[in-house]
Amino acid sequence: MSEPKNAKQPMIVGKAALIMIDWQRGGDYVPGEENGIPLMEGHGDAAPLARRLVTAARAAGVPVIFIQEVHRPDMVDFGRELDGAEDVHCIEGKTSTEIAAEAVDFRPGDYFVPKRRYSDFYHTDLEILLKGLKVQTLILTGGLTDVCVHYTFVDSHQGDYYCRVVEDCVSGSSRAAHDASLNAMEYLQAGARRMSGEILAAFEAMKPSLAA
Amino acid sequence: MSEPKNAKQPMIVGKAALIMIDWQRGGDYVPGEENGIPLMEGHGDAAPLARRLVTAARAAGVPVIFIQEVHRPDMVDFGRELDGAEDVHCIEGKTSTEIAAEAVDFRPGDYFVPKRRYSDFYHTDLEILLKGLKVQTLILTGGLTDVCVHYTFVDSHQGDYYCRVVEDCVSGSSRAAHDASLNAMEYLQAGARRMSGEILAAFEAMKPSLAA
Amino acid sequence: MSEPKNAKQPMIVGKAALIMIDWQRGGDYVPGEENGIPLMEGHGDAAPLARRLVTAARAAGVPVIFIQEVHRPDMVDFGRELDGAEDVHCIEGKTSTEIAAEAVDFRPGDYFVPKRRYSDFYHTDLEILLKGLKVQTLILTGGLTDVCVHYTFVDSHQGDYYCRVVEDCVSGSSRAAHDASLNAMEYLQAGARRMSGEILAAFEAMKPSLAA
Amino acid sequence: MSEPKNAKQPMIVGKAALIMIDWQRGGDYVPGEENGIPLMEGHGDAAPLARRLVTAARAAGVPVIFIQEVHRPDMVDFGRELDGAEDVHCIEGKTSTEIAAEAVDFRPGDYFVPKRRYSDFYHTDLEILLKGLKVQTLILTGGLTDVCVHYTFVDSHQGDYYCRVVEDCVSGSSRAAHDASLNAMEYLQAGARRMSGEILAAFEAMKPSLAA
Repeated sequence: MSEPKNAKQPMIVGKAALIMIDWQRGGDYVPGEENGIPLMEGHGDAAPLARRLVTAARAAGVPVIFIQEVHRPDMVDFGRELDGAEDVHCIEGKTSTEIAAEAVDFRPGDYFVPKRRYSDFYHTDLEILLKGLKVQTLILTGGLTDVCVHYTFVDSHQGDYYCRVVEDCVSGSSRAAHDASLNAMEYLQAGARRMSGEILAAFEAMKPSLAA
Repeated sequence: MSEPKNAKQPMIVGKAALIMIDWQRGGDYVPGEENGIPLMEGHGDAAPLARRLVTAARAAGVPVIFIQEVHRPDMVDFGRELDGAEDVHCIEGKTSTEIAAEAVDFRPGDYFVPKRRYSDFYHTDLEILLKGLKVQTLILTGGLTDVCVHYTFVDSHQGDYYCRVVEDCVSGSSRAAHDASLNAMEYLQAGARRMSGEILAAFEAMKPSLAA
Repeated sequence: MSEPKNAKQPMIVGKAALIMIDWQRGGDYVPGEENGIPLMEGHGDAAPLARRLVTAARAAGVPVIFIQEVHRPDMVDFGRELDGAEDVHCIEGKTSTEIAAEAVDFRPGDYFVPKRRYSDFYHTDLEILLKGLKVQTLILTGGLTDVCVHYTFVDSHQGDYYCRVVEDCVSGSSRAAHDASLNAMEYLQAGARRMSGEILAAFEAMKPSLAA
Repeated sequence: MSEPKNAKQPMIVGKAALIMIDWQRGGDYVPGEENGIPLMEGHGDAAPLARRLVTAARAAGVPVIFIQEVHRPDMVDFGRELDGAEDVHCIEGKTSTEIAAEAVDFRPGDYFVPKRRYSDFYHTDLEILLKGLKVQTLILTGGLTDVCVHYTFVDSHQGDYYCRVVEDCVSGSSRAAHDASLNAMEYLQAGARRMSGEILAAFEAMKPSLAA
């Protein structure tokens, strides 16, 4: 698999981590109560692909980090998040807020980082974890492309990480917003947009050989 | 002037500040050396409008904060900023890096915040200044709509500020990216997109009366 | 109860919160495994007092926030914490790491903030929570006076909060270190050192009257 | 020179930087106006030693970073800094606020980081600079031992840096506070307390040989 012509860096620099952004159960929308996030057509289909990425990462020794957006039940920590297109979402303790464990193979003991805002870095311990793991390249999957994925990309970019987005494994609030955010990420790091096939091949190549 | 129907908050909540993002001189592009930032057609025209906003803000007692992107001459602090669409830019000491003082009425003693990254909040003292000023609403102008303006909006949104973007007073790297980022900001806070006329009228209304 | 002569601010400014720092079970020291934190004589006695503060805060409508230091079981997030006087401590999943719930009346649904470092603010959501609660004054109890309490005080001081330490309700790694840190906090905010009696009286005075 | 017995890490791990904390001119105290920071006897004597460290660092290719505490002239950014033992200090534009350039050999083009709070990391670009320089060990000199030096040490410790304090090249607000803070730093990282002779010898050993 060849590198994109315009890329100024290899796809993976140093040690990589797979960042699983907000693979939560979701469910029916109940106004003012639950799950009030718009979603483009076709979301959900990406979970099997995400699961394959998780499996391949584990086999390759690539750390997998599961992120969960979660708000306190008294809604004290929503800040300005209800002033826009999103209604109440991701309340702690609701089934819809849980990571979709079976779908994406989230297991007890996996790295897990809860967050209160869109960026995975915003007032979370993600950077502490990444420093401890000595990770330099982040591979992003999940949703929404134009919210949590995009703004996590921006903070990782600003924090000097090499950052890649698996474009067939992220979903946006609309097709147009999804496309625009992918372009914006590519603007920041040429070669950031990647297909799952490339990532799977890279993970496969990292797998320790069984031969003695 | 009526509020947009969908807005969930007034245009200005509490005390406002006018944030002048990266109104720098710019100049000719010299590859690998200077000013390597793409720009949509029509940029530059907004400066007279920006200046009117500054004048109106001063008259109304609204703090004006000038932001400057600036990098150390040995380029040690570029991080991943040269891995994408931008070439070398905003080197300390170059004329092109200076605030376009006459154009936007930047004066000695004005609030000034230099930064190393795209978000005005990222490892700067902006939040310290805003806390000191007891500001709750940020009004953003400048460029690029889809980079520094957008990502400053995101951090101010995540930091619980009410945030507005003056859409006839910001410019993007391309028309499409500009439009997409305006939509993304509106997604975060309904009623975020504003025209300079509305802001000027609001500042006018805040002006202390001269009558005794 | 009179204010200290040197105090430049009232004991409580605006809305207060009671910060319960690291009231964890602890237990026997197992080298390289568990609970390797030095402690001055007499620690433990403060829990009943802490519990009285919690009860009084609840009655007064003052938010109570429980903090827990906790490290990932693979110890990837210890950073430099094992280079000094402390051995392995606060491993997730160990009984000794749990909040001493009965002792300090920690209940399901209480505000809870886990952390990876000494300052309660360092890469945690504490500031998001405090902004949501509109808290301006922090009242600190717990341990260690000279580590987590002191460094949380510093970050809250730097973050413009009014900060008080309940000196009969904190314990240090040694008596000398405890005393030095209390002095250092008083250096930052005159009148910061307070006795539990003063705080209890203030909470009592805030209690909503039952009379109609 | 032998390592301290208790040290768990070498004196210098990876690449080092010399951090020159608040070597400012100072001057006479004018109540409510200027320079209101207490100081232990004997301060000032350390400048020649600091200058020798700077010279040795330059010769060894060790980056030197000068830090300056500075507040806006309208005092909007003092936060809670005037609630304690310190009076007005470090106002931008005052001679007393300038780095004592001749005394410590501060030159145009040197790395320079202004700050609004005590920790050199708090809302500054220091971490961006250190990442760019790929520095792992910080060597601290300057003042006050028990305020800016101590709290910078804490943040660098929490940020996974190896941190050393040159104890004959720092000064405190009082002898007791100075001593207590040195002990607190040693608590965090055993072997943190170092004498200038050790550091000078280490820098000497790093000097590139002139022999071909």
